[in-house]
Amino acid sequence: MKGDKKVSMAVIQRLPRYYRYLGDLIDNGIERISSKELSVRMGITASQIRQDLNNFGSFGQQGYGYNVQWLYEEIGSILGLDRSYTLILIGAGNFGQALAGYPYFAKRGYNFTALFDNDTEIIGKTVGGASVFDVAKLPQYLQEHHVDIAVLTLPGYVAQQAAGVLANSGIKGIWNFSGIDLRVPSSMIVENVRLTDSLMTLSYMINEDEILERVSVD
Amino acid sequence: MKGDKKVSMAVIQRLPRYYRYLGDLIDNGIERISSKELSVRMGITASQIRQDLNNFGSFGQQGYGYNVQWLYEEIGSILGLDRSYTLILIGAGNFGQALAGYPYFAKRGYNFTALFDNDTEIIGKTVGGASVFDVAKLPQYLQEHHVDIAVLTLPGYVAQQAAGVLANSGIKGIWNFSGIDLRVPSSMIVENVRLTDSLMTLSYMINEDEILERVSVD
Repeated sequence: MKGDKKVSMAVIQRLPRYYRYLGDLIDNGIERISSKELSVRMGITASQIRQDLNNFGSFGQQGYGYNVQWLYEEIGSILGLDRSYTLILIGAGNFGQALAGYPYFAKRGYNFTALFDNDTEIIGKTVGGASVFDVAKLPQYLQEHHVDIAVLTLPGYVAQQAAGVLANSGIKGIWNFSGIDLRVPSSMIVENVRLTDSLMTLSYMINEDEILERVSVD
Repeated sequence: MKGDKKVSMAVIQRLPRYYRYLGDLIDNGIERISSKELSVRMGITASQIRQDLNNFGSFGQQGYGYNVQWLYEEIGSILGLDRSYTLILIGAGNFGQALAGYPYFAKRGYNFTALFDNDTEIIGKTVGGASVFDVAKLPQYLQEHHVDIAVLTLPGYVAQQAAGVLANSGIKGIWNFSGIDLRVPSSMIVENVRLTDSLMTLSYMINEDEILERVSVD
């Protein structure tokens, strides 16, 4: 037992990256790799890699390095990719439909079982095998179906209302694209994707020299 | 002059959040706010807020706090939101089309002027006012048009090839949804959005207790 100590967010956020790099190594026929080599490829120190993986048990062998396939599967298992998840999506506009229809998610075990919207033009459509229902039917759907993750792809001003309906439904995770900071019960986990913030960060970066020049002249 | 000192990524990534919160305050009719109040709302310490803003000049007044509208506009200007940008998008599938057609981006000055794809079913379509061109025409388009940001919404295995075409085109920023780590000239800035990593992080979080239990038993 590791007791109650949880793994830091920084480590957790690096796990998908390890998984991605190891997948690339497998695609390139590489069977084993030292933590040094992996560190050069990923731009993370070898000791950081060892520390990260030590959170989840013992993975390397002194002088041998890592068995790529085995480590890939172990990290996949840590990430919960050896099981499948049921997802619903609320806000089935163009963006929501594109997300729910993205075939890679289903391949990884993320299965969209229902979409919800309030637009009568969209209700009744089928996206990636899942039907779009009237959002008014969401409470009833949640009573009758097990759902692991709810994806919120609706405008900020209605997202909190949707989150309120999801609260206490048994759903553990919210993947939030709405751009607002949701208030949810502490038992629920919210992962935010802030596309606008990301684009604004990029705008800043491409103008940084000129911006710093300007603000310091004022 | 601030000399060559650049602002840290952590600060830059908080700027869009300040901007968002201040926008909400304006919507709620709040004209001024102390750094203490702002800190409680945002879950950042008041001293962190002062430090962040000090990177760009002097924003608060002792005993008065911040003028919300003024600070909102100043941060918008720092983020480069007081100008407009031309964007192209490469990979005009459902996801790319949803992104390019999202009206909020145009409102903020991010204007998609052309989309590119290799699918003859998609080429010739119009998305949010921009035409989809054959990706073979990309080099010529880049010679004839000024572009600030290229958005890559195409699979990883062709994204590096697209980045190669963009290199030395004068484009300063790449908004990369392809999931791979791009190799680009040091003059270009890449902002990555890794949706799959984000979803995997969420899977881990909702299963963390059980995962840590399992790995420690092994």
